[in-house]
Amino acid sequence: MNAPPASQTPRAFLDRTRFPVDEWNLREISYSEAGLGASESVFAVANGYLGMRANPEEGRPALAHGTFINGFHETSRIRHAEDAYGFATVGQTIVSVPDTSVIRLYVDDEPLLLSVADLESYERRLDFRSGLLERNLVWRTLSGKQIHIRSTRMVSFAERHLAVMTYEFTMMDSGAPVAISSQILNRQDGANEYSDGTSFEPLDQPSRSELDDAGPGGFDPRRADALVGRVFVPQVQRRSGGRYALGYAVANSQMTVAVAADHSIETSQPVDIEETGVVRPDAAEHMYRAYIPQGCTVRIVKLVAYHTSRSAPAAELADRCSRTLDRARAAGVAALWTDQCEWLDGFWERSDVVIHGKPDVQQAVRWCLFQLAQAVGRAEGSGIPAKGVTGSGYGGHYFWDSEIYVLPFCTYTTPRFARNALRFRYTMLPAARSRARELSSDGALYPWRTINGEEASAYYAAGTAQYHINADISYALCQYLAATKDTSFLERAGIDVLVETARMWADLGFWRAGGDEQFHIHGVTGPDEYTTVVNDNVFTNVMARFNLRAAARALKQIKQADPQVYERVVARLELDESEPEEWLRAAEAMAIPYDSRLHIHPQDDQFLEKEVWNLAETPPDKFPLLLHYHPLVIYRFQVLKQADVVLAEYLRGDDFTPEEKAADFDYYDPLTTGDSSLSGVTQAVMAAEVGYQELAQSYFRGSLFLDLADLHDNTAEGIHIAAAGGVWSTLVFGFGGMRDGDAGISFDPRLPELWSGLSFKVTLRGTRVRVELGQREVTFTVEQGEAAEFTVRGEPVAVRAGRPVTVALKQQDQPRLLGAPTVRDLAGARLADGTVLTTYTPQPSDAIGRVTDEPTP
Amino acid sequence: MNAPPASQTPRAFLDRTRFPVDEWNLREISYSEAGLGASESVFAVANGYLGMRANPEEGRPALAHGTFINGFHETSRIRHAEDAYGFATVGQTIVSVPDTSVIRLYVDDEPLLLSVADLESYERRLDFRSGLLERNLVWRTLSGKQIHIRSTRMVSFAERHLAVMTYEFTMMDSGAPVAISSQILNRQDGANEYSDGTSFEPLDQPSRSELDDAGPGGFDPRRADALVGRVFVPQVQRRSGGRYALGYAVANSQMTVAVAADHSIETSQPVDIEETGVVRPDAAEHMYRAYIPQGCTVRIVKLVAYHTSRSAPAAELADRCSRTLDRARAAGVAALWTDQCEWLDGFWERSDVVIHGKPDVQQAVRWCLFQLAQAVGRAEGSGIPAKGVTGSGYGGHYFWDSEIYVLPFCTYTTPRFARNALRFRYTMLPAARSRARELSSDGALYPWRTINGEEASAYYAAGTAQYHINADISYALCQYLAATKDTSFLERAGIDVLVETARMWADLGFWRAGGDEQFHIHGVTGPDEYTTVVNDNVFTNVMARFNLRAAARALKQIKQADPQVYERVVARLELDESEPEEWLRAAEAMAIPYDSRLHIHPQDDQFLEKEVWNLAETPPDKFPLLLHYHPLVIYRFQVLKQADVVLAEYLRGDDFTPEEKAADFDYYDPLTTGDSSLSGVTQAVMAAEVGYQELAQSYFRGSLFLDLADLHDNTAEGIHIAAAGGVWSTLVFGFGGMRDGDAGISFDPRLPELWSGLSFKVTLRGTRVRVELGQREVTFTVEQGEAAEFTVRGEPVAVRAGRPVTVALKQQDQPRLLGAPTVRDLAGARLADGTVLTTYTPQPSDAIGRVTDEPTP
Repeated sequence: MNAPPASQTPRAFLDRTRFPVDEWNLREISYSEAGLGASESVFAVANGYLGMRANPEEGRPALAHGTFINGFHETSRIRHAEDAYGFATVGQTIVSVPDTSVIRLYVDDEPLLLSVADLESYERRLDFRSGLLERNLVWRTLSGKQIHIRSTRMVSFAERHLAVMTYEFTMMDSGAPVAISSQILNRQDGANEYSDGTSFEPLDQPSRSELDDAGPGGFDPRRADALVGRVFVPQVQRRSGGRYALGYAVANSQMTVAVAADHSIETSQPVDIEETGVVRPDAAEHMYRAYIPQGCTVRIVKLVAYHTSRSAPAAELADRCSRTLDRARAAGVAALWTDQCEWLDGFWERSDVVIHGKPDVQQAVRWCLFQLAQAVGRAEGSGIPAKGVTGSGYGGHYFWDSEIYVLPFCTYTTPRFARNALRFRYTMLPAARSRARELSSDGALYPWRTINGEEASAYYAAGTAQYHINADISYALCQYLAATKDTSFLERAGIDVLVETARMWADLGFWRAGGDEQFHIHGVTGPDEYTTVVNDNVFTNVMARFNLRAAARALKQIKQADPQVYERVVARLELDESEPEEWLRAAEAMAIPYDSRLHIHPQDDQFLEKEVWNLAETPPDKFPLLLHYHPLVIYRFQVLKQADVVLAEYLRGDDFTPEEKAADFDYYDPLTTGDSSLSGVTQAVMAAEVGYQELAQSYFRGSLFLDLADLHDNTAEGIHIAAAGGVWSTLVFGFGGMRDGDAGISFDPRLPELWSGLSFKVTLRGTRVRVELGQREVTFTVEQGEAAEFTVRGEPVAVRAGRPVTVALKQQDQPRLLGAPTVRDLAGARLADGTVLTTYTPQPSDAIGRVTDEPTP
Repeated sequence: MNAPPASQTPRAFLDRTRFPVDEWNLREISYSEAGLGASESVFAVANGYLGMRANPEEGRPALAHGTFINGFHETSRIRHAEDAYGFATVGQTIVSVPDTSVIRLYVDDEPLLLSVADLESYERRLDFRSGLLERNLVWRTLSGKQIHIRSTRMVSFAERHLAVMTYEFTMMDSGAPVAISSQILNRQDGANEYSDGTSFEPLDQPSRSELDDAGPGGFDPRRADALVGRVFVPQVQRRSGGRYALGYAVANSQMTVAVAADHSIETSQPVDIEETGVVRPDAAEHMYRAYIPQGCTVRIVKLVAYHTSRSAPAAELADRCSRTLDRARAAGVAALWTDQCEWLDGFWERSDVVIHGKPDVQQAVRWCLFQLAQAVGRAEGSGIPAKGVTGSGYGGHYFWDSEIYVLPFCTYTTPRFARNALRFRYTMLPAARSRARELSSDGALYPWRTINGEEASAYYAAGTAQYHINADISYALCQYLAATKDTSFLERAGIDVLVETARMWADLGFWRAGGDEQFHIHGVTGPDEYTTVVNDNVFTNVMARFNLRAAARALKQIKQADPQVYERVVARLELDESEPEEWLRAAEAMAIPYDSRLHIHPQDDQFLEKEVWNLAETPPDKFPLLLHYHPLVIYRFQVLKQADVVLAEYLRGDDFTPEEKAADFDYYDPLTTGDSSLSGVTQAVMAAEVGYQELAQSYFRGSLFLDLADLHDNTAEGIHIAAAGGVWSTLVFGFGGMRDGDAGISFDPRLPELWSGLSFKVTLRGTRVRVELGQREVTFTVEQGEAAEFTVRGEPVAVRAGRPVTVALKQQDQPRLLGAPTVRDLAGARLADGTVLTTYTPQPSDAIGRVTDEPTP
C-alpha cells in the first residue's frame, strides 16, 4: 500500500537521550531550549478546568506563558473585511488568567536562570500516576556554591480550583544570603517588570517570528487572534500575611476571575527569615529573605486557587479562593498529593491501555490518556477545547473534536465525563436555535466553533457550512446513551438535542424535482475542508440520516417506556407527531452518491468531476496545502485534508459493506494529505479494518507522537486533544476492533504483528470489562459490575464477574479484501470504459513583487 | 410575460413638481432636502478625472461631502477575520480631496443657509450642453432684505485639472454690510470648524443611520470602508493675495495632491472691499468684507486647480496648480465656459440619442449620456470607477462594469475613450501576472476590483472567483479593435492582454478524465453572485472560449499582416507556437452545459439540481436578498442576482440560436431578483431581442431612472455608471437591435410601439453614421467620414457620405418566438416526464436575542 504523504512522514520522533522511555512518566533528563514551546505544552498540568503551561518557576525562558481556565474568554466584534448577512459577529478568545507559577530564587543576589545556569544535574518529570510535574536539579552558582533544588507543581483533580506548588532547596556545600520571590502576574495586559527589573512580555501568544510555518502571507488561520486594549480590569487587590488575592473583570465578556496564593515556609534548621510583600493591580509578590546556612533545606509551599464566574463579582470570587485555600492549608500538601494519586488511580483503573513489549509506545499512549484526564477530568459545565487547557490555540474554542474524537474514550471509560460534555451542548440549545433562524432554518444549528454558544467561525465555507456538527453531537449522544442506558438524561435533555437537530436536517434537505425520489442536502461542507460548500456530501448525508433516525427512534422509545414522559416531551418541544414520520421518510430516501464505474462513494455529488491533485509531485515544503495555495485552487481538485467518506464508514460501519469500505479507502487514502491532525486517526482505524496493518501502524504513530514530537509544528499552541482521544480510538476501535453498531458491541481484533499483547478496559452499562488481546486469543474479564454481552467476529459472548472468557483468534492480520487499483495506480491508465485518469500539480506560487501603487493620474 | 420582481417595481420615478421635464437639463425648481444624498450625486459635476458632489456653496446641508479624483486613494491592510493563503491584502479606498466648493455669504452678519432661509425663488440646473451647474435664488433675509444670488460651478473638460466657480449676488432692495467667505477644507481628516464656529463633519461617508437599507446586521457590503487615523499629511500651505494652495501626501499610499484656489471680485458700483485670508494645514479661507449698496451686483470668481501624483512632491504639484490657475485667469471665465460648451458640442455630436415624443425619457437619457461624459471624458490614465467620480461607493474601485457596460458606448461614439481605458488595463498586466501566480495559474489574472492593480476584493467567492473579468476585458478590447481597426494598439499592447488572459484560461481549465472530451472550467463564479464557486458556469465558459479564440486569431492576424511585428510579439511574450493550437482545441471542446429536458442552458453544471426560490412569496422588504439571507442560504437555491446565461447570449449572440435565447430568457427571467444594478440592462436588451417589448420597456425604465429616482436607495454613494452605459446599450443594442457579431455589424431594430422615433449615432472605423429609426423604416446617414457597411435584418447595406439609405421595416414588435412555459408557470406542475417543479421560500430570519455569554464555569 502507499506510504503516508510527505507531511505525515514521521521524523525521529523523540530525542531519547533527552526524553528517555518511561512507561509512567514523561521525563526530560537534560536541559535544552529546543522545542521550548512544545515542551511547555506537553509538560503542562491541568484538570480540565484549570491548566498551567510548563513554564519554569523562574518565568523564563518562555515561548508562551499561559494559565488557562476552560471557557474563560474575552469577546470581541468580528470584523469581516467584506461582511455579509449572518456572518459570525462575536469573536471569543480564551485569555490567560494571572500566572501564579513564578517562584524565583536568588543566591548571593544571583538569580537562578536555566538558560545560563551551570546545572550539575537536571530532571523534569510529569508523573501520570501522581499527577505531579516535578523538577530536580543541582545548580552551581557563579561563586561555585551548589544548591539542590526540587520543585513540584500540581493542578488538583480532587479540588478543581486548586493548584499546589512546592519549592525546596538545600545549600549543599556552603551558606549564602538567599531571596525567594513568589509572584502573581497578570501577563495578559499587566505590568511587564519583575521586582528585579527584568521585563516580561505581557502577551501570552507565540510571537510571529517563532511560529515559522506561518505561510508566506505571515498568517496561520489555526492561531488565536490577539486582542487589543486592556482585557483584565482590576477589581480586587488583597494581602493578608503570606496570602494574596487579585480579582478582575474581563473588559467585554464581563466574566470575572479571582486568583489567590498562600505561602508558607519551613526550614530544616532555625533561620531568621524576613518576609515582605506587595500587591499591585497587575501583580503581587511575596518575598522571603534570609541567610541560609550550609546543609539547611528550605521548603516553600505555594497554594493557589482560581475562581471564575460570569456573574459573581470578583470580590466574592476572592472570598471563595480564600475558603479553598483555607481547606487546602488545613489538609496539608501530603494529603493533597494523596488525593491526587487516588483520583488518578481511579482513572487508570478505568482507562489504562497496556501494550506489551513496546515501552516507547506504552509511554506515549499513557501520555495521551493522561492528557485526556487533564482535558476532561474536571471540565464540568464547559466543553472540551481543542487544545484542552494547555494553550490558546484555536482560541480555546469547542469544535466537533470533542464529540467524535474525545467522547468515545469518555463514554467507554468514565461515562460521567461524556455526560458532562453532552449536557453542556444541551445548555447551548437556545443559542443553536437562534443560529438556525439566522440561517433561515428550523430546529437548532450548533456553531462550528464557539465558547459561549454563538458561532465564532469567521470563514463560513469551512465553518458554518459544516452543518454536520449537528449530527456529530447527536452521534456522540446516542453512543453515550447506548453505552449507559441513561434514560433519565435522554428524557430530560438528550431528546431536545436529537429533535432540534433532526428538525434542522429535515428543513435543510429537500426532495428534488425530477428523476430521483431522493432527499438531498445541498450547500454544505463535510469534515474535509479541502472541498467546501458542496451538494450531497456523503459524510454529511450519512450522519444526517443517522440523526433523523435517532431522533425518531428516541421518541418512540420514550413513548413506549413512559407515555406521560412522552407527553411532556411533545409539549416541551411543540412536536407535531407527523414530524418523526417525515424524518424517517427523509432518512430512508437520503441521497448517498455512489459511482458504479469506480465502485466508490464520491465524497460529494461532484467530487469525481474534479481533477486529481498530484500529491506525489507536490514539494514537501508546500504542506500543509492550506498555507501555500489559495482556497480556490485547493477546492478545484481531488485532494483531501482528511478523508470524510472513510470517516463516515468508521462511524457508521453498519451502513456500508466491507467491500465498499475497502474500495473507498483505496481511493481516498492516496488523495489524503493528512494536513488535519484529525486525519490520521480515521485512516488508522480504517486501515486496520480493511487489512492494511502496516499502514495502520504508521498512521497510529503519527497520531501517537503528534504532540510529543511536535509533528504539526504547532504544539506550542497547546496539545491536540482530539489526537490524544484518537490514539485511544485507534487502539480500541482499530487494533481492538471494537464497534458499537446498531446491533450492539462487537469485536474483530487485529493486533499488530509486532505486538505481543494489548489490554484495555471498556465500561458497558456499568460493567467494566478488561479486554486482553494476544496474538492467538482474546480474553474478557469483568473488573467491576456483573455481566456484559457482545460478539466476537460475529459469535455472541457473555462474560460475568469472576468468570473470564477467552476466545481463540485465527488470523488477525487479515488479507486485503479487495484488489481494486488505487487512484495513484490508475493515474494515466485507461479504465475499461476508456476513461483516462490524469493527475495534476498546480504551480506553486512564487513570491513575486507586487505593484504597490497605480500609474500616476 | 412576468412583471419585474418586487425589488424592481418602479416607484413614482421623479417628482415632476420639483424636477420638471427638460430635454437638456436636470432642473430642480423648489428647494427640498428630501433625497439629499442622491441629489448630491445626480447634480455632481465631473470630467472623469475630477468630480465634485453637488453640495451647496454654503457647505450645508450635506449627507456626504466629496471631491474625488479618479484613482486617488489610500491603501490599508485588509484584515480578514479568518485569513487564508492568497486572500487580498491591500485595501484601496478613494479618498475625498480637499473641498473647494464652499463660498458662504453673510448679510448683516446673517449667514445664508438653505435649510432655514426664506427663499422667494430657487432653481438649480445641471446643463448638459454648457456643462455648468447653476443655482439661481432670491433670499429674503430676516430683516426683510432681498438678495438675488446666482452661482455656477463647472469642472472643465478642456483642462482636466481645473474647476471654475462664480458667485454673484445683487442687493435688490437695500444695502447691507456683507461678508463672503471662500474656503478650502480638508474634510477627510481636517479641522472641523468653519471660521464662524459652526462645525462640519470630517467624514465624507454617508452615515449608517442615513443609509437605511443596510441589513439588520447593520452592514452593507456595497459601501466603502472607513479609514482610521489621519489620511492627508499636510505638506504645503501657501498664500499669495487671493491665491491659496494646500498640499498633502496620503499617509499609506504616499500619493500626493495639491489644490489651489484663486479669487477675484468685481462689483457693478465702486465699493470699498476689505480682503483678508488665512491658511492652515487643513483649511484655507479668503474673506471679503464690504458694505454693498442697494442695486449693486457683486461677482466673485473662484478658479480651482487640483494636481495629483504618485511620485512628485506636493510642493511641485502646488506649482503646477499655480500654472493652471495663471492660464485660466488669463483666459477668463467666459472663454473657459466657451471651451466647455465646445467640448460638449463635440460629445453630443458623436453621442446624442434622440427619442421622439418622449421628453421625460429624453431628459433621463441625456442625463445618463452626460454622466458617461463626466465619468470617462478625461479619465485618461485611470480606469472608470463604478460610481464615476461622483461618490465613494465601492471604494472608487474599477470593476468589469467598465468593459461590459461602459466601453461599448465609448467604442461606438468616442473610440479614444475606450482606448484609454483599455490601455489602462494593459498597464495593469504586471500586477495581473503576479496575481495569477498567487492563484497558481499561468498568464495573467485581473483583479475583480482594484484601483492600483492589486486585488482588493476581500470576499473571494464573489470576487477573485469571478475569473470572467479576464474575458470581459478581452471582449471589450476585441470590440474596440473590430470597431476601429486600431492595429497599432493591438500590436503594441492589446496582444499582450489577449495572450496572457488566454494563457490563464488554458491553465485554469482541464480535460476531464472519462466520458466527455470536453474542456472544463471548475471552481469559478459567474456574474450572478447569488451562486458562487461552481463548475462550468455557462457565462464564464462562453466568454473564456471567446477569449481563447480571440487570442489565437489576433496572433494569426498579426503574423499575416507583418511577420516582423509577429516575431517581436513572440519574443516579448515568450510564446510557444503550440500555444494557440492548444487554445483553439480547448475553445472547440469547451463544456457548455445544456439540459435537453428543459431545453435550456443551466447556469452551471449543477444549477438545475437546486431548489427553486419562491420569489413570488418573498416579502418585498427582504430585497435585496443579500442583506437578509446568509450566503449559504442564497447559494442553495435557483435564484439570481442577475441572469448571466442571458448576458452570455447578449454578448455572444452568435453562439446561440434564437430559440435558445428565448428559452433561456423564459427560464431565468422569473428567477432574477435584479438585486444587481447591472441586471436590468441585460434583461432589457434580451427581452427586446426575444420579443417581450413591454418587459424590455419596463427594465429599460428601471435602468434609466436607477439614479434619478434612487431606485436602489444608494445613489447617495454615487451614480451607477454601468447603468448609465447600460441605458445607451439598451437603446442601441436593445431597441436599435445593433450587434457586432463575428460577421460584422448588424441591425434588427425593435422600436417600442409608443415611441415615434429613435435616433442615435455610431462610429464605425472612423465613419460616424446617424441611425434614425421610425416605426416603418430606418434611415442611415453618414455624418462624418466616408462609408460604412452592415446588415439590416440579414440584408447587406452600404451607406456613403451624402447618400443616406432608408430601409423599410415590416414588423418591429416581434411576436414571441417560443411559447415555452416559464419556470413560474411550471411551479408545482408536472412535466411530460413526470417531473414536478417545486418552489420554496426560505424562512426569513428574525431578530432573535443572542446568547451573549456562556454558562458559568
